[in-house]
Amino acid sequence: MSQSSDCVIIREVGLRDGLQSIARILPTEQKKEWIRGAWDAGQREIEVGSFVPARLLPQLADTAELVAFAKTLPGLVVSVLVPNLKGAEHAMESGADLMLLPLSASHAHSLANLRKTPDEVLAEIARIRAARDAAGSNCLLEVGISTAFGCTIQGRVEPSEVLRLLQAALDAGVDRVGLADTVGYADPRAVKHLFERALVIAGDRLDCGHFHDTRGLGMANVMAAFDLGITRFDASLAGIGGCPHAPGASGNVASEDLAYLFASMGVDTGIDIDRLLTLRSRVAAWLQGEPLHGTLWRAGLPKTMQRARAVRS
Amino acid sequence: MSQSSDCVIIREVGLRDGLQSIARILPTEQKKEWIRGAWDAGQREIEVGSFVPARLLPQLADTAELVAFAKTLPGLVVSVLVPNLKGAEHAMESGADLMLLPLSASHAHSLANLRKTPDEVLAEIARIRAARDAAGSNCLLEVGISTAFGCTIQGRVEPSEVLRLLQAALDAGVDRVGLADTVGYADPRAVKHLFERALVIAGDRLDCGHFHDTRGLGMANVMAAFDLGITRFDASLAGIGGCPHAPGASGNVASEDLAYLFASMGVDTGIDIDRLLTLRSRVAAWLQGEPLHGTLWRAGLPKTMQRARAVRS
Repeated sequence: MSQSSDCVIIREVGLRDGLQSIARILPTEQKKEWIRGAWDAGQREIEVGSFVPARLLPQLADTAELVAFAKTLPGLVVSVLVPNLKGAEHAMESGADLMLLPLSASHAHSLANLRKTPDEVLAEIARIRAARDAAGSNCLLEVGISTAFGCTIQGRVEPSEVLRLLQAALDAGVDRVGLADTVGYADPRAVKHLFERALVIAGDRLDCGHFHDTRGLGMANVMAAFDLGITRFDASLAGIGGCPHAPGASGNVASEDLAYLFASMGVDTGIDIDRLLTLRSRVAAWLQGEPLHGTLWRAGLPKTMQRARAVRS
Repeated sequence: MSQSSDCVIIREVGLRDGLQSIARILPTEQKKEWIRGAWDAGQREIEVGSFVPARLLPQLADTAELVAFAKTLPGLVVSVLVPNLKGAEHAMESGADLMLLPLSASHAHSLANLRKTPDEVLAEIARIRAARDAAGSNCLLEVGISTAFGCTIQGRVEPSEVLRLLQAALDAGVDRVGLADTVGYADPRAVKHLFERALVIAGDRLDCGHFHDTRGLGMANVMAAFDLGITRFDASLAGIGGCPHAPGASGNVASEDLAYLFASMGVDTGIDIDRLLTLRSRVAAWLQGEPLHGTLWRAGLPKTMQRARAVRS
């Protein structure tokens, strides 16, 4: 674990990756409460929504309003997902700090999710970069290589294709890249091997690990990437999440469990876990009946960690 | 992961660690079905019960009969837990291959669990070793250092005390030692640090990692030990388990999730995961209403792994 850091960013993606997988539409006021609660708990990067057409994802139709609200919270990095140039234009207009564009390494998933081949998406990424330059926007452009470890539609995804797309995205002028196990097929060895090769290509620009806990390996996969020096991870409160075009792809790693993982190891995330658990119970009440995940909330913090906090305060 | 192996043993402890934490008494015939099903699925080491007084744990009163049954299954290593010399005598009489004696590193847990201090337990271990020598038995003697990463009663447990007890157990003549996170307080860094130091003392005789998933870190903790070369892990079907004297200590790592972790990485456990999942659903039906855990059973195997198996068969 020689390369691992003592400071990690957990980007909250529950409001986007989580809520897009749930049919019910959470009222905008509750989403704002969630964003404020996450900020109160110390989270400093939140993906608040997605600039996709409202007819496709009505759950996320209020993204512009959420960006405006989130921008009032000091120090908060506001991320949004964008599927194309149109979405990117909305993101830049909204004042978001970062736009995340998914690029599926699985051809089949790319067609199902964006109706474009990966290379067509790459061409769109180049147009987005050009549009940002023309607009003089400083909105960061991040590409997440999704289905990087396999795909529920296509099955196997070749690491060489993932790396080709990663290089091509960098060539198209993106600021950051990440690797996403969209459907929960990764294992720690696969994570180690792919991230090692991706780091050779992208260096510091490889800045995000996105893991689902679909088959119980989420935390172990996070650790495999962390051990290579990755210090920014997506996670979702109560582990909600999935992908509408990847059947059975439920469950991001739970933010509260991830915060606990790092806190246990003495790695700073800036997160107050008690506050995050309180927020979790509020969000869980709003989402009653939906499948929630995560483990820490049942047992609570260890006695040793409670005592450490009591001494500090 | 340079020291990690390509072959791992998963010892099933659901029939002991799991069932002792559940008030209902599973009929002996169902336990035999479980043992046979685990063997059919490729498990070759099973802790079938515990030689403790039946008035204390009536759930495990049929241990001698289960040992006799398990010994009819070719190639199966039959483990039993023993709390003291009396239990060890029963274990040797029963024909078990291995007796596991828990030695709590937490003074408070030791008193609650065995009504003895750790040093009194060490004296008992020496008596057990002497009794085995006198009987000419070849029943292996393993000591599991429990609460090695903290205790729900005492709180912090000093690593130096864990290592002192480990050395003392070896000095008392045990064949193998293991480290157990009885209450789910460990994290990957703590696992790495303690196992590294324990390996210096015990070498190859440090042969077991026992992790609970109480706070979501079970798999990551297993990986931390595996990366150091540990190749034998306890696990419980459906993640049942706990400790009657450690409140809130529920949930061993789930055998089926652990088998999947290693299979994903190409590490051989000898386990047929489909068969293990079938067994899980039978056991889950017997234990209806009890808290079960694990993640893989919801999603099933990835498409890529299904295809790989179809090609092989």
